[in-house]
Amino acid sequence: MKLGVLVFDGFELLDVFGPLEMLGQLGDELSIDIVSETVGSVASAQGPSINSAVGFNSALYDIILVPGGKGTRTEVNNPELIAWISRQASSAKYITAVCTGSALLARAGVLTGKSATTNKLAFHWVASQLPTANWVAKARWVQDGHIFTSAGVSAGIDMSLALIAHIWGQDRAEKIADYCEYVWNSDPDNDIFSAKYNLP
Amino acid sequence: MKLGVLVFDGFELLDVFGPLEMLGQLGDELSIDIVSETVGSVASAQGPSINSAVGFNSALYDIILVPGGKGTRTEVNNPELIAWISRQASSAKYITAVCTGSALLARAGVLTGKSATTNKLAFHWVASQLPTANWVAKARWVQDGHIFTSAGVSAGIDMSLALIAHIWGQDRAEKIADYCEYVWNSDPDNDIFSAKYNLP
Repeated sequence: MKLGVLVFDGFELLDVFGPLEMLGQLGDELSIDIVSETVGSVASAQGPSINSAVGFNSALYDIILVPGGKGTRTEVNNPELIAWISRQASSAKYITAVCTGSALLARAGVLTGKSATTNKLAFHWVASQLPTANWVAKARWVQDGHIFTSAGVSAGIDMSLALIAHIWGQDRAEKIADYCEYVWNSDPDNDIFSAKYNLP
Repeated sequence: MKLGVLVFDGFELLDVFGPLEMLGQLGDELSIDIVSETVGSVASAQGPSINSAVGFNSALYDIILVPGGKGTRTEVNNPELIAWISRQASSAKYITAVCTGSALLARAGVLTGKSATTNKLAFHWVASQLPTANWVAKARWVQDGHIFTSAGVSAGIDMSLALIAHIWGQDRAEKIADYCEYVWNSDPDNDIFSAKYNLP
């Protein structure tokens, strides 16, 4: 299978590299492309930059991963980026977003009539991008069919393991979590942060 | 303060970007340099590459972060890399390593007479780099004075929050964990993986 990971200036580091740590353990079973509007160095919200080798003329991917980060505030209004998501979503087997990446899925029409979640602190801003979607505040991640969206930043790791379990089996996901010495929160409803941030 | 993050071909993604997600929330209070032997693109063990802007002629840092990954098997025998760690360690206020990064600290003489931990699956290999150190198997991380070493991969996140708590205060660390929707394991002795891997 082929995974396309979207990046843009101001992406959140762990939104990308948490899931890629887990998905990267699949070895030859999953190829990984880093995709961005301009091929080359793309700076994260925290400063360090990643290299993208593929632009928006990319092939179609089996799985796409859309991270969040402060850059999403600009990218919701970037027609080229939104068009890339729409084009990919029309044929991808799995569509995933972490944190405020859900805002980009919303603007690309992916979440119309769907359930989804997002970052708690940015919850109202993200929901305002598509008020008719069913936004779930108390969730570590939400799976609606082939669409997986996670809560903020760290929650992407738990969601990526759920995706691995869905495709490659629960045992494989648990083995990868153990390999990474990661205590997997494998219950999508187990979320302590909605209460901390007074979300319903 | 200034943080120097060492990278090399085959570094483990989350060893670097887990801690950088947390430390990156400190904003202007901590500048971050990515350091490698050859300036430019450095490929992770999982494939995606990061950009290094600084070589081994770098200035001295207040904090150094040494990740693990399969690349450490080669780098323990790289005199230039080991010399960079030794030079930094002679003046750094804090020395940190994640996962098999402890093997590189061991070879640089940093752990002589010290307590430390490392990745469970690679425990015996890492310990063999300096058998006289006090290697602690049941630990999420170990702090020995100004030296912080963590267990495998994901444990680096918990350790980096402990470092933030040590320098900037417990409240700051908790706020950053909450911001990242991260359930911080703040007890260094709370480790479930030593038993899973039959380590004492």
